[in-house]
Amino acid sequence: MAPTLELNERVAVDKIHVKSLPSNGSTRIPGLSLESPEKHDRVLKVFRSFIADLCQQFNGGHPGSAMGMAAIGIALYKYVMRYSPNNCEYFNRDRFVLSNGHACLWQYLFMHLVGVKSMTLDQLKSYHSTKTDSLCPGHPEIENEGVEVTTGPLGQGVANAVGLAMATKNLAATYNKPGFDLVNNMTWCMIGDACLQEGVGLEAVSLAGHWRLNNLCIIYDNNSITCDGTADVANTEDINAKMEATGWKVLNVFEGDSDVAAIVDALTAARSSDKPTFINIRTTIGFGSAAAGNAKTHGAALGVDDVANIKKSFGLDPNENFHIPQDVYDLFADVRARGDAYEAEWLQTVQRYKKEDPVLGTEFSLRVSGKMPDDWTKCIPGRSELPIEPTSSRKSAGIVTNILGERIKSFLVGTADLTPSCHVAFNNKVDFQSKPDLRTACGLNGNYSGRYIHYGIREHAMCAISNGLAAFNKGTFIPMTSSFFMFYLYAAPAVRMAALQGLQQIHIATHDSIGTGEDGPTHQPIALPALYRAMPNILYIRPCDSEEVAGAFIAAIQATETPTIISLSRQNLTQFPQHSSREGVSMGAYVFVEADDDGFDVTLIGVGSEMGLTMQAKDVLLKEHGIKSRVVSFPCPRLFEQQSRQYKQSVLKPRSGKATVVIEAYAANGWERYADASMSMRRFGKSLPSKATYEYFGFQPQNVADKIRDLVEEVKRDGIEILRGDFRDLNGSLGVGFEH
Amino acid sequence: MAPTLELNERVAVDKIHVKSLPSNGSTRIPGLSLESPEKHDRVLKVFRSFIADLCQQFNGGHPGSAMGMAAIGIALYKYVMRYSPNNCEYFNRDRFVLSNGHACLWQYLFMHLVGVKSMTLDQLKSYHSTKTDSLCPGHPEIENEGVEVTTGPLGQGVANAVGLAMATKNLAATYNKPGFDLVNNMTWCMIGDACLQEGVGLEAVSLAGHWRLNNLCIIYDNNSITCDGTADVANTEDINAKMEATGWKVLNVFEGDSDVAAIVDALTAARSSDKPTFINIRTTIGFGSAAAGNAKTHGAALGVDDVANIKKSFGLDPNENFHIPQDVYDLFADVRARGDAYEAEWLQTVQRYKKEDPVLGTEFSLRVSGKMPDDWTKCIPGRSELPIEPTSSRKSAGIVTNILGERIKSFLVGTADLTPSCHVAFNNKVDFQSKPDLRTACGLNGNYSGRYIHYGIREHAMCAISNGLAAFNKGTFIPMTSSFFMFYLYAAPAVRMAALQGLQQIHIATHDSIGTGEDGPTHQPIALPALYRAMPNILYIRPCDSEEVAGAFIAAIQATETPTIISLSRQNLTQFPQHSSREGVSMGAYVFVEADDDGFDVTLIGVGSEMGLTMQAKDVLLKEHGIKSRVVSFPCPRLFEQQSRQYKQSVLKPRSGKATVVIEAYAANGWERYADASMSMRRFGKSLPSKATYEYFGFQPQNVADKIRDLVEEVKRDGIEILRGDFRDLNGSLGVGFEH
Repeated sequence: MAPTLELNERVAVDKIHVKSLPSNGSTRIPGLSLESPEKHDRVLKVFRSFIADLCQQFNGGHPGSAMGMAAIGIALYKYVMRYSPNNCEYFNRDRFVLSNGHACLWQYLFMHLVGVKSMTLDQLKSYHSTKTDSLCPGHPEIENEGVEVTTGPLGQGVANAVGLAMATKNLAATYNKPGFDLVNNMTWCMIGDACLQEGVGLEAVSLAGHWRLNNLCIIYDNNSITCDGTADVANTEDINAKMEATGWKVLNVFEGDSDVAAIVDALTAARSSDKPTFINIRTTIGFGSAAAGNAKTHGAALGVDDVANIKKSFGLDPNENFHIPQDVYDLFADVRARGDAYEAEWLQTVQRYKKEDPVLGTEFSLRVSGKMPDDWTKCIPGRSELPIEPTSSRKSAGIVTNILGERIKSFLVGTADLTPSCHVAFNNKVDFQSKPDLRTACGLNGNYSGRYIHYGIREHAMCAISNGLAAFNKGTFIPMTSSFFMFYLYAAPAVRMAALQGLQQIHIATHDSIGTGEDGPTHQPIALPALYRAMPNILYIRPCDSEEVAGAFIAAIQATETPTIISLSRQNLTQFPQHSSREGVSMGAYVFVEADDDGFDVTLIGVGSEMGLTMQAKDVLLKEHGIKSRVVSFPCPRLFEQQSRQYKQSVLKPRSGKATVVIEAYAANGWERYADASMSMRRFGKSLPSKATYEYFGFQPQNVADKIRDLVEEVKRDGIEILRGDFRDLNGSLGVGFEH
Repeated sequence: MAPTLELNERVAVDKIHVKSLPSNGSTRIPGLSLESPEKHDRVLKVFRSFIADLCQQFNGGHPGSAMGMAAIGIALYKYVMRYSPNNCEYFNRDRFVLSNGHACLWQYLFMHLVGVKSMTLDQLKSYHSTKTDSLCPGHPEIENEGVEVTTGPLGQGVANAVGLAMATKNLAATYNKPGFDLVNNMTWCMIGDACLQEGVGLEAVSLAGHWRLNNLCIIYDNNSITCDGTADVANTEDINAKMEATGWKVLNVFEGDSDVAAIVDALTAARSSDKPTFINIRTTIGFGSAAAGNAKTHGAALGVDDVANIKKSFGLDPNENFHIPQDVYDLFADVRARGDAYEAEWLQTVQRYKKEDPVLGTEFSLRVSGKMPDDWTKCIPGRSELPIEPTSSRKSAGIVTNILGERIKSFLVGTADLTPSCHVAFNNKVDFQSKPDLRTACGLNGNYSGRYIHYGIREHAMCAISNGLAAFNKGTFIPMTSSFFMFYLYAAPAVRMAALQGLQQIHIATHDSIGTGEDGPTHQPIALPALYRAMPNILYIRPCDSEEVAGAFIAAIQATETPTIISLSRQNLTQFPQHSSREGVSMGAYVFVEADDDGFDVTLIGVGSEMGLTMQAKDVLLKEHGIKSRVVSFPCPRLFEQQSRQYKQSVLKPRSGKATVVIEAYAANGWERYADASMSMRRFGKSLPSKATYEYFGFQPQNVADKIRDLVEEVKRDGIEILRGDFRDLNGSLGVGFEH
């Protein structure tokens, strides 16, 4: 062992709370006896050599932690996890999240050993290869068999695991009855030294402790090594004490490289804990390598010589690569049959349940199938049920959420501590909380069947937890979240992971644009729409009134493999019952006001809360300047991109020889695809009352109309060609430097 | 007090660690005696009434916490903080960060009371008004006198405070000598219930504990109320135990509404602590209001009746608004003179120091003036010193960083645990660590004068801490950070705050584009450039080779009020010494290959790591299809926007009647401003070796050339007008749904 590690190890042992587990094995899984340490040792050697081979093959990858975690894998995959290798999708399976996703070889190889059919030796060898349909990408990916969530960006997996555990709790509290444990699975989450340095992981464990998710266990592969060397170069906190303070049960395993029995004991204890469990397991990164315990083994192949020496030191043949002797497979031979039995028993329970309670039983099966009730469309208010007086779109969205939230159990509606602002608290809501508890005020109105979730001021974890909820079984839950739109920048890494994984969810993002007013530039999201409009597989929808809000919800619910952000105003918006259209929203953009028979001079694109201004500018242009405008409502560029070229051209009339101007109080980036000019935000916002903020930046009907008049006159004079490659920012140029 | 709060309060007292402070006042500030409780009480009443008046005036704002924190303010502004109301910029002042920025009225009113001249009564009354030059915006803004950092997005301020405290430690370790405490200020950070729920706050306190920043004190306004009600609806952890586990000293104050003496004791103890100090002060939100202790007082005016009743209950005249009696001002009458004395003494010390050590003294003064040494340009390698063989741009950037980091003390170079990948560890670097400490490996190579910072796996805190470093005194530090570009999405809320505040810093973002390869789609930042290209006041620069890398650093250093992201490749890039130009980078875009005299058929825009492909495609177009291409290098659209229309048109030739195609392995959003078509990424990436990833998505010279040929032929046939309003994504359309 390297000297630096010795130093570090000394501290680690010194500073933690040591807790002993019962040594009589009483907590072990009933009916399952442990194989001998010798048999485990044999598997460990073969496993570690194989990992070294895999990374050596293409001279890259992450061998270190995969080798270090070998004993943990035997404990989980052979003894503790309840799953079915023959059907990795079996509904009540234990969920497993590899939050330290770079250690994916570890997971792939154990999947192979337990007999997941798709995970062949050839697949394993395709890690880091040019094989385009490899099941062994550099990080685990959800679309591959046996992978619950895509991981890689560190910390996300911890929050995903919290969401997965919540899903179990909510389904159990909703459907389980005495004698009918329809859903009672555990969620296991493997982490390295990084995931609880990342803020999103810390936010998530705080919530898991609060909710007492005793069906959640974090397994900490504590090898005390990160890319920069020993982890204590940047982290010397007492993680065990911290987790205890956060409401977790803490267990330690000190010989995590080899002591399978101790790991099994700890994991088994987690299953019967009354809190979420944190198991701190000391391991050695790259165990067996000459560089064991050193960061060098983290993210690179070990080298031909080291790989040979590893095998020699293990008593294996250094010339034999990718070799798994039959006795190693044999150790896992019973796992498949046990998995089949778990599933068969569960199917029987569901059948019995359906006889006992046909109504709930049928509903449960629908949830398992990932479908919404067919009549969800009835939850969306018709045009005549919507307000016609000026209404903020956050309030309009509240009308829809209220019905969806109350009537459809798939919706878990959450907020990052903005219940009074986001209007998502539905009638008769029950909070998601641990069982009623007189110690705290919150427990009085909550239990695990509750579907209103107080995430606290933790936007990032809110969305990352939602990914876990959505990934539990696609369609069983449609998580909703809510916050100010600006704070979906905090949550962006998680929202992106939803888009990447095809996880449906609805984000209610209020206080968009600069209309949020007095809170000032920190709260005014000038550039954020550019991110979400560029991101693949997400809908960013900005409805302009209540009818378009209804359309936004319909689009979001129909997009079953796509997250949606519905972007809403704080301030009241004029309603346009003569113009707005939910069907129009589904097309992404549509003609709001068509030209008269005698033609038009300019097309105005109005978006979201700026539609009112757009319509006013249209009136000023006509009355004062005799300029005729078409108006296009453009709630969602992404949906518009899906339409036919013919439809697109009917909306935008690009060959008309007339200019198109977009009016939106955001950065214009991206609108250049559809417009020749913009009235947009070219700097950060300002703390003023909402109306005054718009005025300060020139978003007044008169000013906008005057600027458009100038443009129209220029085009009339010089021809539309002058705008080619010369996009006009009517609101001034965007400087570099500190403009206040 | 409302029943819910009583419940909550009971728990709070029950669960925390209670610690007593010495009651003999021995820790109090020498030479400063406390005024009587009665005098304090008088100030508290007037202060709270005034806050209520301010919010009532325009019927909005955040009165609750400002009223609850009144006693804390007396302790800080009257007794403990060392600052100068007559010169809020005095260099060695204690820094104060209001991380719960919504409570800004509290800060504004204390600034008024202590006599900060710009903070007049009229200014105070402009809070939430339409006054466009108000010094009292809805959250504190850095450009206003007496505000250290702009706050509002919760949690950021905690990390900013850590950066401010680090700045002090680094300057002190670099310049202080026995008898010459040039820099020894404290940093005080006020937080509410949110800032340590947010991940960025948690990441930052973990680092502060690790670095033993004993010059940092967090003051926790523990009113146990958030927007959603009692904080325990989402948070029931033991924050004191958590902070202790994280390496902080924890102190409690139980009567925080009124016990100024206890608060002074705790704050004073913080100044002599050997660790960072966390003071947990129990207060009542909206103290005095009928709704005291209730979330209703958080974010809305209290109502005319309540405001009147508050004053009545305080024994004040309910008909008198905005009234501050002279005796209240009198309590703070000595603060200004004390501030003047602090500053005078410091100036004297600096003078003496300069005599003692003219070299270091002059250097220190340069740092105070916020300037770099004039000869910094010598640190940028000339063209002839740069590699000509294929080199990754991360490595090219490492060459520059190595020199800058070693030679110029303004640079604090950090990494989020990616030292081996980002190449920013400069020669002879010393780590920023607390004093050498044999308990940990890390301390052996570090002390506070070190300028290489291991942030751990905490990208968000890394950038938010950098904001504090940069805000200590603009120009004294230019923080550098490093990570994979993808993880600047984790850090985005902090990077945005730098742009908003005009804080110079350089972010070294490696592994950009899809060239990062095997790590897969989670690590390939398809949409992220769209965010940073849209964001005001930030430079996102993608250099194509070493020469452009040099240009990127020059642009970044010259942008003294703007943060810069330099976006770099993992893979080797062809060098173009005949084409690339550092001066070109400063223009944002420039002609890389001009047309021959006999004209051209198409303009190709090449960006960053895709320039090699662009140049290859140019060759294929000519050789196989006889198509002549101009090539434009376009490292930074933001800088290009600053150029004259004439220059822009000379680069892009929009009236040529020829198409322009951008080639970049990112989402195309925004390029529509300059191009008619793109070869870009229309979905998430893929885990394959770097070269294979490009090939998988069609980024091969032949394929790109063939697609461009089709476009050029179409334009020749039908005229350039056909591309108007019909941007072409040569790489297919972007679907909604889960495309893998």
